Amino acid sequence: MAIEALSWEKGTLILIDQTKLPEELTYLYCKSVNEIVGAIKRLSVRGAPAIGVAAAYGVVIGVNSINTDNHGQFFKELDKTISFLASSRPTAVNLFWALGQMKNKAYQVKDKSIGEIKHILEEEAIFIHNDDKDRCRKIGEYGASLIKDGYTILTHCNAGALATGGMGTALSVIYVAKEQGKRISVFADETRPLLQGARLTTWELMQDGIDVTLICDNMAGMVMKQGKIDLCIVGADRIAKNGDTANKIGTYQVAILAKEHNIPFYVAAPFSTIDFNTSNGSEIPIEERAFDEITIGFGKRTAPKEVKVYSPAFDVTPSSYIKAIITERGIIRPPFKESLINLT
Amino acid sequence: MAIEALSWEKGTLILIDQTKLPEELTYLYCKSVNEIVGAIKRLSVRGAPAIGVAAAYGVVIGVNSINTDNHGQFFKELDKTISFLASSRPTAVNLFWALGQMKNKAYQVKDKSIGEIKHILEEEAIFIHNDDKDRCRKIGEYGASLIKDGYTILTHCNAGALATGGMGTALSVIYVAKEQGKRISVFADETRPLLQGARLTTWELMQDGIDVTLICDNMAGMVMKQGKIDLCIVGADRIAKNGDTANKIGTYQVAILAKEHNIPFYVAAPFSTIDFNTSNGSEIPIEERAFDEITIGFGKRTAPKEVKVYSPAFDVTPSSYIKAIITERGIIRPPFKESLINLT
Repeated sequence: MAIEALSWEKGTLILIDQTKLPEELTYLYCKSVNEIVGAIKRLSVRGAPAIGVAAAYGVVIGVNSINTDNHGQFFKELDKTISFLASSRPTAVNLFWALGQMKNKAYQVKDKSIGEIKHILEEEAIFIHNDDKDRCRKIGEYGASLIKDGYTILTHCNAGALATGGMGTALSVIYVAKEQGKRISVFADETRPLLQGARLTTWELMQDGIDVTLICDNMAGMVMKQGKIDLCIVGADRIAKNGDTANKIGTYQVAILAKEHNIPFYVAAPFSTIDFNTSNGSEIPIEERAFDEITIGFGKRTAPKEVKVYSPAFDVTPSSYIKAIITERGIIRPPFKESLINLT
Repeated sequence: MAIEALSWEKGTLILIDQTKLPEELTYLYCKSVNEIVGAIKRLSVRGAPAIGVAAAYGVVIGVNSINTDNHGQFFKELDKTISFLASSRPTAVNLFWALGQMKNKAYQVKDKSIGEIKHILEEEAIFIHNDDKDRCRKIGEYGASLIKDGYTILTHCNAGALATGGMGTALSVIYVAKEQGKRISVFADETRPLLQGARLTTWELMQDGIDVTLICDNMAGMVMKQGKIDLCIVGADRIAKNGDTANKIGTYQVAILAKEHNIPFYVAAPFSTIDFNTSNGSEIPIEERAFDEITIGFGKRTAPKEVKVYSPAFDVTPSSYIKAIITERGIIRPPFKESLINLT
């Protein structure tokens, strides 16, 4: 796994510009909070865990630019920076989780010198990043126990190395299964409107030599009916405490199709994706995206100019469709209301 | 309903070039069988009934170009023309049905002069076209009885005026319901890869002032879960004698989603779509399309160059998911094996 969606070098956050993949592998060098917020909004960096890591580094870049000896002034600026980063996208809870970690750390050491606080915050962001790498691998190791030699796995959107600080969540399971010598094939939903499956999942699996076949989202049912799929696995942007899971739009119907074809449907995500302040999926805010992501997706207008569009970026899969949630703390099975809280 | 997908003028078949919609409303003037086969393959004309009508006119254009007084030679050329037209696309049965009608007619009058046969074939093609218009309206009238004032209807692909010689099949139901004074809203699946829903269905409904909202195929489940959809209605490319229905890829999963949300799912199609030579859906040949329709859909490459792709153009919805089939002979309900044959 050579791909790293993001890296930190001497105060600069280096991101693969995922809007350019698969045609160009180019990097963004972010030196300001503005640039990071822009990169998150534009989806140059995306995927719930990766957004969390990017935001943590965003706090470091933000505080490093605060020129004051006054603690009150410093914390006021810090809070503003965190609020600005939090405004970038509404659904992925890892963003708020990572910003919360950074804020707590800062207030824990608030009596130290501003220079020391800045240093501690940089260490905290690096810790969050490294921790994400560890968690990805652990998710992969737990998840791989569910994968048999010869399995074909369907995934939606991109929950891979490109979506995390490490080797991914859903795709980490596939990478580890492959390391274990299992022969794995993958069907990747293209994932309209922004085609993260077509552009990112196929690309990163092909980098690792994994057999992957691209389909349109509306082909998943037929492929399942043909008996081609043994298991579905997806990532998550936020999981309510009852197990209801917000993930990329289209996930909900993959879960329904899996149920109809008796195919197990798994969610893989770090434990930080579970939002214990959200009792069920109906409370998760769902971002709506700009209409032209659908109507002028790739340079050419493909719908009438005045057409009405509905463009939710995420949907919620009720926990009843989910066979298990794979986290770095283990494989969590229903009833989720009890099993999730037991692992806190 | 001003739109006509095709018209016949003095030996020329005039087609809206549907590959150019919605950006440009341009027409193709087909004066050779080659041009018609090209237009069908390229999907400049598409939709099972419209393909049938276009092919019937193709036979007329073909025979008009045969310069011989020899009946044996004439029928040899006629058979060649019909075979060539039949090779254009494999799934829609109306193509073979219309070509069969033309062939039967020619052989019925084989003892007449070649000039007379040519004239009779032109009349037959015009009859098939006008008959399709009548059938579309009747489908609309039967179907509209299922539609209540205030209904919101989800449709997939384009089964409208652009897909037929008349006012459509699935969309005819909507047009007639609107004529009856019912307030109707529509959600249109964009229908990857070629976006017939985004490009054609929204366009033709907007021409008629019907409220339509565009969604990506992977949003249908969420929209249903939100309680926005009262009824689903789609067209058909071929219906087996047990009611299994081949239609645009993605239809099968719309049917599953409808079932999961207790939403009735209807198929609307002329009776000629029913293929009594096909006992069930597994016998229907499914066309696979070129990979670049998915990977370079609209001018920009959106998947790695070497990626494997699976691109079926159609899928089969088992009859158990279909509440009724709306034809010009009435609304046909399960068990289809008996109810379909009863109407022949």
